[in-house]
Amino acid sequence: MPDAEARDRIFAAIDAGFDKQVAFLQDLVRFPSLRGREAPLQDWFARQMAARGYAVDRFTLADVPEHPKMAPMVGVDPAGSVQVVAAHRPANPAGRSLILQGHIDVVPEGPHEMWTHPPYAAVIRDGWMYGRGAHDMKAGVACMVFAMDAIRAAGLEPAADVYIETVTEEESTGNGALATLLRGYRADAALIPEPTGHTITRAQTGTIWFRLRVRGVPVHVAVAQDGTNAIMSAYALINALYEHTKALNAAARDNPWYAGIKDPIKFNPGIIRGGDWASSTPAWCEVDCRIGLVPGTTPEEAMAGIEACVKEAAKGDSFMANNPPEIVWTGFRTDPYVLEPGSEAEAVLAAAHASVHGGEMPERRTTAVNDTRYYGLYFGIPGLCYGPKGEVAHGFDERTSIEDLRTCTRTIATFIGDWCGLRPRG
Amino acid sequence: MPDAEARDRIFAAIDAGFDKQVAFLQDLVRFPSLRGREAPLQDWFARQMAARGYAVDRFTLADVPEHPKMAPMVGVDPAGSVQVVAAHRPANPAGRSLILQGHIDVVPEGPHEMWTHPPYAAVIRDGWMYGRGAHDMKAGVACMVFAMDAIRAAGLEPAADVYIETVTEEESTGNGALATLLRGYRADAALIPEPTGHTITRAQTGTIWFRLRVRGVPVHVAVAQDGTNAIMSAYALINALYEHTKALNAAARDNPWYAGIKDPIKFNPGIIRGGDWASSTPAWCEVDCRIGLVPGTTPEEAMAGIEACVKEAAKGDSFMANNPPEIVWTGFRTDPYVLEPGSEAEAVLAAAHASVHGGEMPERRTTAVNDTRYYGLYFGIPGLCYGPKGEVAHGFDERTSIEDLRTCTRTIATFIGDWCGLRPRG
Repeated sequence: MPDAEARDRIFAAIDAGFDKQVAFLQDLVRFPSLRGREAPLQDWFARQMAARGYAVDRFTLADVPEHPKMAPMVGVDPAGSVQVVAAHRPANPAGRSLILQGHIDVVPEGPHEMWTHPPYAAVIRDGWMYGRGAHDMKAGVACMVFAMDAIRAAGLEPAADVYIETVTEEESTGNGALATLLRGYRADAALIPEPTGHTITRAQTGTIWFRLRVRGVPVHVAVAQDGTNAIMSAYALINALYEHTKALNAAARDNPWYAGIKDPIKFNPGIIRGGDWASSTPAWCEVDCRIGLVPGTTPEEAMAGIEACVKEAAKGDSFMANNPPEIVWTGFRTDPYVLEPGSEAEAVLAAAHASVHGGEMPERRTTAVNDTRYYGLYFGIPGLCYGPKGEVAHGFDERTSIEDLRTCTRTIATFIGDWCGLRPRG
Repeated sequence: MPDAEARDRIFAAIDAGFDKQVAFLQDLVRFPSLRGREAPLQDWFARQMAARGYAVDRFTLADVPEHPKMAPMVGVDPAGSVQVVAAHRPANPAGRSLILQGHIDVVPEGPHEMWTHPPYAAVIRDGWMYGRGAHDMKAGVACMVFAMDAIRAAGLEPAADVYIETVTEEESTGNGALATLLRGYRADAALIPEPTGHTITRAQTGTIWFRLRVRGVPVHVAVAQDGTNAIMSAYALINALYEHTKALNAAARDNPWYAGIKDPIKFNPGIIRGGDWASSTPAWCEVDCRIGLVPGTTPEEAMAGIEACVKEAAKGDSFMANNPPEIVWTGFRTDPYVLEPGSEAEAVLAAAHASVHGGEMPERRTTAVNDTRYYGLYFGIPGLCYGPKGEVAHGFDERTSIEDLRTCTRTIATFIGDWCGLRPRG
């Protein structure tokens, strides 16, 4: 822990800079950084970091070597997917190095009329900031940036290397986080301030994305009995996958990490498109789906399960039996990840949490993914997922709590100080 | 019937012009005259007719008065929907006047890789011309134009007014045909050479188009049990409408015109779109549907039945019960139509058919619509639907028979001669 005097100076600096931090988060939220359109935000962020005196490395997914865990990208150009790493490189580094990483891609906001406030307006009301990405996870990005700002404003600096990284693709493949590692950035720990509500993420499920492609024979609806309806065949596949998911959840009831969570494996038919004309039986239908997997299952096993399910369901459909539906792997094929208890990094974070919140750091097991898996599973770096508090990830009226932004910034600043060590700013 | 010598001269002219007729049909097929994009074909057609010496009236759906039977158009500009009427106006007209009408709009061709020949290439193989619209109904348009050409090439002309009309919107609303009547064109009979395979259409069902709009609350799939999936709610409505259709077909078993036809009422979910992201529970889903109605049912009754079905189905869905789905009327709301047997026009057509095919003119009852209903139901003009032969309307490898193009042109030329009377060309 930084000594009490240093800590007071840092917390005072957080308070002094808090209006700027909130405005910075509003700036972030106002970028509609949807998949494939993150670059303007990243450009702006790189300039913000350069203005603070960090060394900035801006690169794209096309600039890094291949890796077996790179996930397929469909309809998005890797060369347009910009990553930013801002480096704090102290003279004669000591202590433990740290990666602070946040994703700045957001999921689509859906119909605007279902939002109380426009999704990219970053409106503040009654202690909440509303907007797509305000919660997931631009608030966390603002915390990590302003935790570092406050340390420096207090006349201090981390004694070790610290990388401040903003990445893309967290919501679709994870390739942005992986790319920072393939670019070569390593540290003794990584903290990703996803909006966990001040809890540490103990376990995360894996995710598989896939597209079902059904083709049918369209005919004039006047003779519809001679054709096959691709929309209805797709529906048969969706129903089979719901049944498949039930069986997977039954098997997960004694999973060591998810036994206590009802139905940890979520299946979601998330996008559907099919047919061209109301009066023609549809010739095609595509459904973009997502399914989870629990620790103990590999992505390859989960994918084989999907294939077997679809194959079996197609047998029961007279058209699909002769025209097998296709499965296209469209993104995520991620391993589940468990942050094994007992790491020094987690202990330091727990102490920082306790110093701010006055109690034990709660843990959560999530049924979604986050980028920490790359650090923990493939690069031997403890990946801590801990961040501020908000509501309605991926939904309408997504929002982040303003006061929790402040407390989370305190916790992260404390963690940086304890993990890296502090010294007077050089 | 024209006298034998005149008839021989006309048939010889059909044969002499047949290569040109086939090439004309190829030209027609090569226009991708999809809904909203028919104007270039109509412009070309108007020039073709003007070059033949007809007086050409080109106007749009925005140029005609309102009418209660005008159907709603969604996403298509009436001012861009061009109609063409080419008038043969003999000096001192005698005999009975005639409207020859064909639609030149086509339905979407679907994925090109499912076609043996490109859908707008008008490839001819083994006596068939392939292409979207070749069969439905550009072949019929070529028949009516070249039947008139042949009469004139034989040194003759109809003694009465003849209007050659090409219209849009037959596949979606019928507003094109209605617009020609609202523009003021009337005659003693109307012939629409839809590809009936040399049969007369005795009865047609009506059609209703509608869009189901479901809105849901999207959430991160990690907490999917808290949200509702608009795609699955839409499927619940589709299933209810299939059940509704079964009940309608059961009731239609003693329909005077459709008793002999199994399940004359077709329901088709033809287009589906929903959701934005594989990992968000979808917030919205829209399904464009089509359902039929048999004679004895009004469009208003059919629409009320759809509304009641959707309302009832929504009650059984916890989300939709509080967020009622919407129904948008998106096009067709057409009356069924029966060509009452016994008209003089039909008798003359039957005689023309017999003179070419050597037997009785078969009749058909179709489970789809055609434009003749406007003539018969609202303007007291017998509407004859009779035309050439082809296969796979609205499907892949749609095609028309080249030889049937010739025989149908003979029948139509004979009918024109008999109905209107012929005189030496003035």
